[in-house]
Amino acid sequence: MSQPKDQTKKFLPAEIIQKKKRGELLSAEEISWLVTSFTSGELPDYQMAAWAMAVYFQGLSDFELAHLTLAMRDSGRKFNFQKLNAPRVDKHSTGGVGDKTSLIIGPIWAAAEIYNPMIAGRGLGHTGGTLDKLESIPGFRIHLSAEELERNVEKYFFSIMGQTKDICPADRKLYALRDVTATVDSIPLICASIMSKKLAEDLTGLVLDVKFGNGAFMKTLDDAEKLARTLVSTGVHNGVKVHAVLTDMNQPLGRFAGNSLEVFECIEILQGKKCMQGSVDFYESTRELSLQLASHGFVFADKAATLEEGYKKAKEILDSGAAFTAFKKLCEYQGPARLDQLPLAKFKADIVAKGSGYISKINTEKLGLALIEIGAGRRKSDDQIDHSAGFEFLCRHGDHIEKNQALVKVHCADQQQVQKITDSVLSSFEFSNAAPQGLPLIARVIP
Amino acid sequence: MSQPKDQTKKFLPAEIIQKKKRGELLSAEEISWLVTSFTSGELPDYQMAAWAMAVYFQGLSDFELAHLTLAMRDSGRKFNFQKLNAPRVDKHSTGGVGDKTSLIIGPIWAAAEIYNPMIAGRGLGHTGGTLDKLESIPGFRIHLSAEELERNVEKYFFSIMGQTKDICPADRKLYALRDVTATVDSIPLICASIMSKKLAEDLTGLVLDVKFGNGAFMKTLDDAEKLARTLVSTGVHNGVKVHAVLTDMNQPLGRFAGNSLEVFECIEILQGKKCMQGSVDFYESTRELSLQLASHGFVFADKAATLEEGYKKAKEILDSGAAFTAFKKLCEYQGPARLDQLPLAKFKADIVAKGSGYISKINTEKLGLALIEIGAGRRKSDDQIDHSAGFEFLCRHGDHIEKNQALVKVHCADQQQVQKITDSVLSSFEFSNAAPQGLPLIARVIP
Repeated sequence: MSQPKDQTKKFLPAEIIQKKKRGELLSAEEISWLVTSFTSGELPDYQMAAWAMAVYFQGLSDFELAHLTLAMRDSGRKFNFQKLNAPRVDKHSTGGVGDKTSLIIGPIWAAAEIYNPMIAGRGLGHTGGTLDKLESIPGFRIHLSAEELERNVEKYFFSIMGQTKDICPADRKLYALRDVTATVDSIPLICASIMSKKLAEDLTGLVLDVKFGNGAFMKTLDDAEKLARTLVSTGVHNGVKVHAVLTDMNQPLGRFAGNSLEVFECIEILQGKKCMQGSVDFYESTRELSLQLASHGFVFADKAATLEEGYKKAKEILDSGAAFTAFKKLCEYQGPARLDQLPLAKFKADIVAKGSGYISKINTEKLGLALIEIGAGRRKSDDQIDHSAGFEFLCRHGDHIEKNQALVKVHCADQQQVQKITDSVLSSFEFSNAAPQGLPLIARVIP
Repeated sequence: MSQPKDQTKKFLPAEIIQKKKRGELLSAEEISWLVTSFTSGELPDYQMAAWAMAVYFQGLSDFELAHLTLAMRDSGRKFNFQKLNAPRVDKHSTGGVGDKTSLIIGPIWAAAEIYNPMIAGRGLGHTGGTLDKLESIPGFRIHLSAEELERNVEKYFFSIMGQTKDICPADRKLYALRDVTATVDSIPLICASIMSKKLAEDLTGLVLDVKFGNGAFMKTLDDAEKLARTLVSTGVHNGVKVHAVLTDMNQPLGRFAGNSLEVFECIEILQGKKCMQGSVDFYESTRELSLQLASHGFVFADKAATLEEGYKKAKEILDSGAAFTAFKKLCEYQGPARLDQLPLAKFKADIVAKGSGYISKINTEKLGLALIEIGAGRRKSDDQIDHSAGFEFLCRHGDHIEKNQALVKVHCADQQQVQKITDSVLSSFEFSNAAPQGLPLIARVIP
């Protein structure tokens, strides 16, 4: 339905921009022509930039968005898993700090024989990316051909690759343009970017981890819910079952943030290990969120009648070690990768509290930006990453902290790196005299 | 004040776009940097296009607009008439059909020894342009160097030239970009475009003919007033006295529209001639509006204490033939140009009414577009013009018309041209049984 009925029909780009600027609806043909011309280079960047800004102000209808998403999907290579004759599911997160659940969910699904083709991304701004995490495992290959991913999924149920030049080229080009024209924060454009790539995976079901809070792209639960509902509706319009889970990103997820450290945490969880500090398991949030998100895949794939049943099956698989086996297998067919040779930081140092009190706020975005400072993320897309650099969180929101108690253990190259970020990390934590209200891990599930 | 305090200071264009998108105010330095970088080509078109669209939605404050205008003026060569030690005035019209007053006002002012340097424009869309009209006079030179214009003004008080590459290059470049990105209809951007060029003329006084109605860019009196107030305020911010006259463009001005025909009408008026049809002088609206607009120049130049006195002096000069002498002199020093060799159309044909009644509406924009069809205007900027083509209006709004009475005499190349536009011209006239309310020539004067 995204193909123009008459491929030879021409449109005036200034008129399409004008219509959107005035809040009028664009036809499927106009949207398809816009995306096709932009991808081919026929439509200049300056017209697409003006259009994107008009979309920022005027939005897109459900119909327009569904067509934009399809046109972007159709701008490049699409996977085809029809021959599997079975459901294909995936998970996508809008991004956060310490957000590592893909490396647990994928293996759980693979062990349950649920197909999961995954096109993953790199870290973006203060948030981490699955590809960077996997690349911290020596020998792990993320640059697969589409054919290899298809073969892997067919054979092993699970495979991960980076976006290639021929998958959703319209999205790659539009994203780069939005990045430099202040049009990133448009819900319909975010939605089209996410969903076009996911639709290219030829899925039947998708669970979205839509984060809200100071470390998320969407700062408020309301904005996250708006994005979530738009994503779900776009999926439904295109015949894919989509659930969205609104999850908290007012503090980092789990014990670690940083590439090899996050892989380490996942391996520990896949092995059934805990990370006890007093009576608290610091792996709990990562494990629990992974199981909750995984439960949706069981329902999508008809392996469970309810989310509760899906959760129970996911937990059984995790506890049995079968998910760890699947992860180790992934490291073989996308390797050979050496899990036992994860790079570790040469240097560790604690950053300690200057005062005492309950932790009432953790500025998670600021922590994510500090991670970039020590080399765990990128400022520019061609920056080199120090895969071993990262943070080990020694406290959680609501904890009572004494003066000189360690808040964060920094894993990095040397003392100089720690000095660069100490002030920034310290000012990321706010204290209060009374215990603050707790943060729920999951706020809402849609639909 | 438009120069950044620290020329080496760099700004992030995406942040400037973001601020404007969110409705925040930009600093003088940010605006100046934006214009300078855009003009030099350092700032890509796609970022300027996104910024222009953000301005369309969020507007500009008086302060931002004053700085944008100055930065655009300062992007190129400015005239300097300080040595004259006397006021310099000009008139600018926002454009209409049959709008030819510059060729009467300039000579009146010149005869009154009021300095008038004029950078004029070409026809735009359905509206005519002074340069095209002058070029219809064989031998008339509009491509002057800035130095020649300065010399002419100094010696003869009046000179007209086209915008050159080195006058307001930022405006030329931004206008071309706005044209293809649907960001033309932004009042602050229109204002900056007009005023940057007028400020480059080093004026002390400017009278604006802001047209409203179906043949104007601003369709309603309210919108025209908004634009007028913005223009006046931008002038005041930059130390130029600006008056705005809101004038009717719900019907063409005067007897003729089309390049050589409009010059012909002006010569007739400068010679004191009338164009009587029954008891109505069809030159009256052109003559009256020219005198009204000219009166402001007399006040600006301290040649009259009031607009009434200015009007009286302007009329005396027109009636005495001194303005015609000044116009003939212009044709010498910007020539030699042969007024007696004005090109005349080979073919004339009347378009007659199919019914009868009072003319209740004249779709003036549609008539302007029909003029383009017969070659009197351009579809694209490099189209050739037929200078002799045009319309002679044989009726006015409110006239009672009988069936088969001629409405318009078409001056053009051949019968084929007439056929192309007959339907369009006929449908531009609407009839009613009762006489409609009259259209005032001038609705308001600001301030």
